[in-house]
Amino acid sequence: MPFMPHKQVVIIGGGFGGLTAAQSLRDADVWLIDRTNHHLFQPLLYQVATSALSPGDIAWPLRTIFRRHPHVRVVMDEVLSIDRAARLVWLRESAPIAFDVLIAAPGSRISYFGHDAWEESAPGLKTLADATYLREKILLAFEEAERSQVSAGTRNRLTFVIVGGGPTGVELAGALAEIAWKAMGPDFPSLRRDDLDILLVEGGSRILPGFTPDLSAKAAVALGRKGVTIKLNSPIGDIRADGLVIGGEFVRSTNIIWAAGNKASPILTSLVAPRDGSGRVKVQQDLTIPGDPWIFVIGDAAHCADAGGNPLPAIAPVAVQQGRYVASLIREEIAPDQRHPFAYADRGMLATIGRAQAVAQIGLLRLSGLPAWLLWCAVHIFLLIEFRSRVRVMSEWIWYYLTFKPGARIIYMLPRQIGDKRKSSRLRPTGSDSRH
Amino acid sequence: MPFMPHKQVVIIGGGFGGLTAAQSLRDADVWLIDRTNHHLFQPLLYQVATSALSPGDIAWPLRTIFRRHPHVRVVMDEVLSIDRAARLVWLRESAPIAFDVLIAAPGSRISYFGHDAWEESAPGLKTLADATYLREKILLAFEEAERSQVSAGTRNRLTFVIVGGGPTGVELAGALAEIAWKAMGPDFPSLRRDDLDILLVEGGSRILPGFTPDLSAKAAVALGRKGVTIKLNSPIGDIRADGLVIGGEFVRSTNIIWAAGNKASPILTSLVAPRDGSGRVKVQQDLTIPGDPWIFVIGDAAHCADAGGNPLPAIAPVAVQQGRYVASLIREEIAPDQRHPFAYADRGMLATIGRAQAVAQIGLLRLSGLPAWLLWCAVHIFLLIEFRSRVRVMSEWIWYYLTFKPGARIIYMLPRQIGDKRKSSRLRPTGSDSRH
Repeated sequence: MPFMPHKQVVIIGGGFGGLTAAQSLRDADVWLIDRTNHHLFQPLLYQVATSALSPGDIAWPLRTIFRRHPHVRVVMDEVLSIDRAARLVWLRESAPIAFDVLIAAPGSRISYFGHDAWEESAPGLKTLADATYLREKILLAFEEAERSQVSAGTRNRLTFVIVGGGPTGVELAGALAEIAWKAMGPDFPSLRRDDLDILLVEGGSRILPGFTPDLSAKAAVALGRKGVTIKLNSPIGDIRADGLVIGGEFVRSTNIIWAAGNKASPILTSLVAPRDGSGRVKVQQDLTIPGDPWIFVIGDAAHCADAGGNPLPAIAPVAVQQGRYVASLIREEIAPDQRHPFAYADRGMLATIGRAQAVAQIGLLRLSGLPAWLLWCAVHIFLLIEFRSRVRVMSEWIWYYLTFKPGARIIYMLPRQIGDKRKSSRLRPTGSDSRH
Repeated sequence: MPFMPHKQVVIIGGGFGGLTAAQSLRDADVWLIDRTNHHLFQPLLYQVATSALSPGDIAWPLRTIFRRHPHVRVVMDEVLSIDRAARLVWLRESAPIAFDVLIAAPGSRISYFGHDAWEESAPGLKTLADATYLREKILLAFEEAERSQVSAGTRNRLTFVIVGGGPTGVELAGALAEIAWKAMGPDFPSLRRDDLDILLVEGGSRILPGFTPDLSAKAAVALGRKGVTIKLNSPIGDIRADGLVIGGEFVRSTNIIWAAGNKASPILTSLVAPRDGSGRVKVQQDLTIPGDPWIFVIGDAAHCADAGGNPLPAIAPVAVQQGRYVASLIREEIAPDQRHPFAYADRGMLATIGRAQAVAQIGLLRLSGLPAWLLWCAVHIFLLIEFRSRVRVMSEWIWYYLTFKPGARIIYMLPRQIGDKRKSSRLRPTGSDSRH
């Protein structure tokens, strides 16, 4: 396909994949579309949910990132569909945008495996709105328990249930346990350690199934020492407002967090390309969709097979490398028959268990405890987008992390800001009311 | 009135007045009741509203503040009424709390001078929920203007109107002008300076009527240089969804911020004490209500006359000094006939105009520009509650302030996070749903 002198590249998604691609492209007109106005550092989202960091610590406005990249135009809008034939991306608020090259990096959504009704009682963790909602819900749970103890003398059991033993669930459980004992415990003098249960529920036979068994075991021990109860081989039967059915047994809890499944963004449907069971697009070796050498799908939205035929994991380093790869193909205008296949340089898998603890596997290297956590920090510094001083951001994170940043434990959005019920209603979506 | 060996002191409000009193009391059992879980540093609330700071930068959980003060019990609840006869404070969620001594420091609310319908179109700035709502509304206004320019080629005028020329309105206008030009201007390449209007509307003949006329004039000049248009002698006739009537003329705007009036908290009604036109309780010289020497009202809720018979201003230093004063009366158990009257040591009045600019008057001293701003910083360091390193917090503020902290410009709560409309609905108050 011949290019116009200035090819128009449209990138859907300002996450790790889309952002890296945009930063790596130079002579093209780039349109970067995202539903939000910011790039979110997702690996630390669980820290906002557990009141260790504030939203503004892990997100940066896309426009500010690209302030000095005049070739990148940022559009804050929702993609409705992709029109391959007409080479157009249809948006909710704006006029459609034409493309010569398309990079679809829309990420993934939470999947409830068909039980969408569970979402009401078991929210997931994907966006900052999710994280702040969870954060306030957790803080209010402690306030409520304290209040009933002080006011009515009733000692209520506070049970948190995290569904899903993958990295997200493990990190949430570990962080929640730490915050509960170390930061909130001292704040709520009426609550005793016995009153609090933190459950991590996994349907399979071990947590962190993507890691080697010995690391799974180490992680389980570390979590146990933090006060987390792990339930294995426990599929979820049902989730209701007052609790859930785990392995046939009803567990009472109004604090359930879902970390068990992802599915691909629905906009990929309009691409009309082969997809896997999670809805991810099965891409070619050059990350394109079959029959269109200039439409790429990268990141969590792509099912990209490694040498062994297994899909690459949905983690940030994969998306970053894919973003750089497709950008180089576009920049050099490499014809389809001359492209070398994408090869992921395995940076390993890492999961934190809490402060100064993690598990890591890179190739044959296995680490746990503090060395793994330091490695986690080092790797994540390099995932940081370049526009800000990496040293500065990492120092801020480490400082807040170690000092249990109190400013992250404020409640101001949920209706428990009693007396402000009327103001909270402003946050209700009202269609035309929110337009101006 | 004889005291029991351990007198029970109930403090309503965790703001400057209530907090200072709680920290100053030692041998009493103190109950500190607040609707929120945090102490809010209100002088900087306008900086959260204008995306210069994040919520967590100016608020600290009350429980963490009093972690090392076991004599202070924190209760997160709403006060419904005060029963003087029964010596009880009635709460919304908890059982009533009995008091021997009561310090009412509930602060003030926004007043629309009887036109409560205006609140929908002209939100005020009193809580963190207000500030984050305004912040996102402002950011979305810029996004919308950029989108219509890029997408439809229509150049829409973006008009912000701030109603009220007192310190709050002046600080908002100055900060908004700065953020608009310096932080957001570069982010929105399609917007031109001509497209943006920032109006500051005052019903009287000068802004900052509490300051001397020459300082009002200096402030007006500084604001003008920042691009703010000031309309004096312009009472508000009406406020609608699409604009407002200023001095008989209709001005189209969907971005109106109300900074024009305060009224006292409604719980004061149950105290049955004389009040002024704004609902503030007219306190005696020892800050008590007539007929009850152990019920105090302090801070913005109190109408406390100075030597000239004028009410003290509703500013933080007044509340702090009153908090210390009543705490000393209580601690020393000073009988009503032996109390020296409260005397406010005037720390002056300060208002910032923007980065490195302010106006200040202290006694006969008049300052403007950078010296006034430095003085503002110095004074506000000392208003900081003691539990954290003042140097650290001030350094953080100054660092963020000077570097236009990008993390404060993220949008994640309002429904314009397109596609997440369903999630935003969680923030709707639902009564029993939010209980657990």
